[in-house]
Amino acid sequence: MKKSVALSGVHAGNTAICTVGEKGNDLFYRGYKIEDITNSCCFEEVYFLLMKGKLPTEEELNNFSDQLVEQRNLPSNLVRTLEQLPKSAHPMNVMQTIVSFMGCIENKFEIINNAEKLQNHSKRLLSVLTPALLYWYQFSHKGIRISLKSSEKRISGYFLDLLHQGDFDTDWVQTMEASLILYAEHEFNASTFASRVIAGTNSDFFSCIAGAIGALRGSKHGGANEEALKIQEDYPNKNLAKKSIMSKLKRKEIIIGFGHPVYTKRDPRNEIIKKYAKALSEGNPNSNLFEVAEVIETTMLQEKDMFANLDWYSAVCFSHLNIPVKLFTPIFVIARTAGWSAHIIEQHKENKIIRPSANYVGPKPKEFVSIKERESSDPSKYT
Amino acid sequence: MKKSVALSGVHAGNTAICTVGEKGNDLFYRGYKIEDITNSCCFEEVYFLLMKGKLPTEEELNNFSDQLVEQRNLPSNLVRTLEQLPKSAHPMNVMQTIVSFMGCIENKFEIINNAEKLQNHSKRLLSVLTPALLYWYQFSHKGIRISLKSSEKRISGYFLDLLHQGDFDTDWVQTMEASLILYAEHEFNASTFASRVIAGTNSDFFSCIAGAIGALRGSKHGGANEEALKIQEDYPNKNLAKKSIMSKLKRKEIIIGFGHPVYTKRDPRNEIIKKYAKALSEGNPNSNLFEVAEVIETTMLQEKDMFANLDWYSAVCFSHLNIPVKLFTPIFVIARTAGWSAHIIEQHKENKIIRPSANYVGPKPKEFVSIKERESSDPSKYT
Repeated sequence: MKKSVALSGVHAGNTAICTVGEKGNDLFYRGYKIEDITNSCCFEEVYFLLMKGKLPTEEELNNFSDQLVEQRNLPSNLVRTLEQLPKSAHPMNVMQTIVSFMGCIENKFEIINNAEKLQNHSKRLLSVLTPALLYWYQFSHKGIRISLKSSEKRISGYFLDLLHQGDFDTDWVQTMEASLILYAEHEFNASTFASRVIAGTNSDFFSCIAGAIGALRGSKHGGANEEALKIQEDYPNKNLAKKSIMSKLKRKEIIIGFGHPVYTKRDPRNEIIKKYAKALSEGNPNSNLFEVAEVIETTMLQEKDMFANLDWYSAVCFSHLNIPVKLFTPIFVIARTAGWSAHIIEQHKENKIIRPSANYVGPKPKEFVSIKERESSDPSKYT
Repeated sequence: MKKSVALSGVHAGNTAICTVGEKGNDLFYRGYKIEDITNSCCFEEVYFLLMKGKLPTEEELNNFSDQLVEQRNLPSNLVRTLEQLPKSAHPMNVMQTIVSFMGCIENKFEIINNAEKLQNHSKRLLSVLTPALLYWYQFSHKGIRISLKSSEKRISGYFLDLLHQGDFDTDWVQTMEASLILYAEHEFNASTFASRVIAGTNSDFFSCIAGAIGALRGSKHGGANEEALKIQEDYPNKNLAKKSIMSKLKRKEIIIGFGHPVYTKRDPRNEIIKKYAKALSEGNPNSNLFEVAEVIETTMLQEKDMFANLDWYSAVCFSHLNIPVKLFTPIFVIARTAGWSAHIIEQHKENKIIRPSANYVGPKPKEFVSIKERESSDPSKYT
């Protein structure tokens, strides 16, 4: 079978940020178990941990969070640009445009990329992503210019507040918090690796994040929770779900949201996010979404020995938080910007360009043919 | 000594597009020698060759060129956005913003990435890059809204026409043409590799190019011709240049524009671009630039056995074409978009995600510490 992953198992650099599945079912950020972190921390705390390598004290966390709140303001020329982006735009292209635009404003011509400058750019960008995305979303989809003021100090609550314009259950914030933490970091996945390839040339912070967003946009990477929800919403109840999945498996169809290229036993994030999904579905008129998700999870385990990954119940959670499907992957961007930032800083410190070789499979050297002597050919053959 | 390149010599995929330095001093695009191509082709022809894998007939080239001319129009919302970008913006961040903005307009939600669609996106983008960049440049730097109409059919001439507003020597077009061809493609360099990492996730064309631009912006990659000109302009004549370079070499300073990580004998592009630089300097009041460049080239060869690469005389050429230094790397973007497009199409066909591993050098699993019990530490130690 043709391998579907290139550079699989090849070390492309050193990292001190995270380990994924060392024992097949574990995840550590900077040496701390993901279960401990998600139980005790807010997203800002995890962002601090990832970027600076240590857990903050209360004072450090308060200062750090205050800095993030203070930098939420959108530059007026960015606002005018957001109003030019149509409703039909893919939100991931919008996210990339926000980042590259911020690069135009925040960068100077000097090319010094020390950790302090990179951290400052990271904080500015992470503060801006939520209001910029939701300003564009509300303006393009509903024609309203929302106020960006909010009493919500944390990114989790701020996102829900701007999206729902105050109309949300305060309990939802915890779920949002857990989601952001669980999506924050995952070693050398394709988007993080893209950010490191760009950082390796000594490029600026915003250029690296824009590239990472480009990679996360791909259907083989960030879009999985959107696909998971589509599957779950297909079934009105668990009996129909089980029956349909069984026949899909017989036809050897792939079910998005299951298995993982690095975890061999299970995805440790699944158990955590599942609890939040279950809590949200209790007493919820739309609770069959959780039941459907769970019966498919059990079926996949029994029939294929495949475990649900983070995306599976994230889809249930986001749906219960009334988050539009098209904003699922942009939330992933906000969360992963924490991890990307840590990797960009690390790559700059490493000071190495990432430049592999290619295996040449093309034509041997051949005689040049002048334009008068060339033959036309079937376009379908040479494209 | 610590290696300065990661993944050096490691095959990250197959390619049929280009070979670099197989014999230490040679470059082939799709099997054709770079010398033959530069002598006989225009940039559009090389773009066709790289992207489609064959040299076009006259009719094919005419059709292809016509398509590029027809697609030069800038969407009105892009124009409004360009007017929001300040003069102080780095032109490479501007280029990235142009690309991500075009991604917002041109992409649909479907995720089919066949060669035909990718080629169409490539042609649209390559047609837009020149007018968008120069519209921004003229508006932000001179406050004028230029007309984008031009009788110049080729990208080379169109660039010079929009930049100089008709006031340029028609002989300059050939030099511009050669530059675009020589910069068009170079195997798995860092920016091309970034575009392939992004393409590997099945992301859209614009997302891939935006990431590639991010990588090319880095001072270890695309910015070398700008640095080369700074060195050359430091000296009023060749005697002073030689003297100064000798003492720089004694102090073991690095001279940008010399040596190459892949070519071991010489850069075959240097000889070609040098001819254009020489021709432009003949009878030019600013001809000492060429003389200075040449004496430094000779000195580097004699003293360090290091050869000039493409960037060295490109700097002389661009300077003689009255191109502002800050537009040097954006020209590289326009040229390399041809090569990037070919690689993105190839990576999509290959249908592999690029996901290496990391060598973990961080802390071992450790006990979580609650926020009340954490100790503050010197920020300089953990950043």
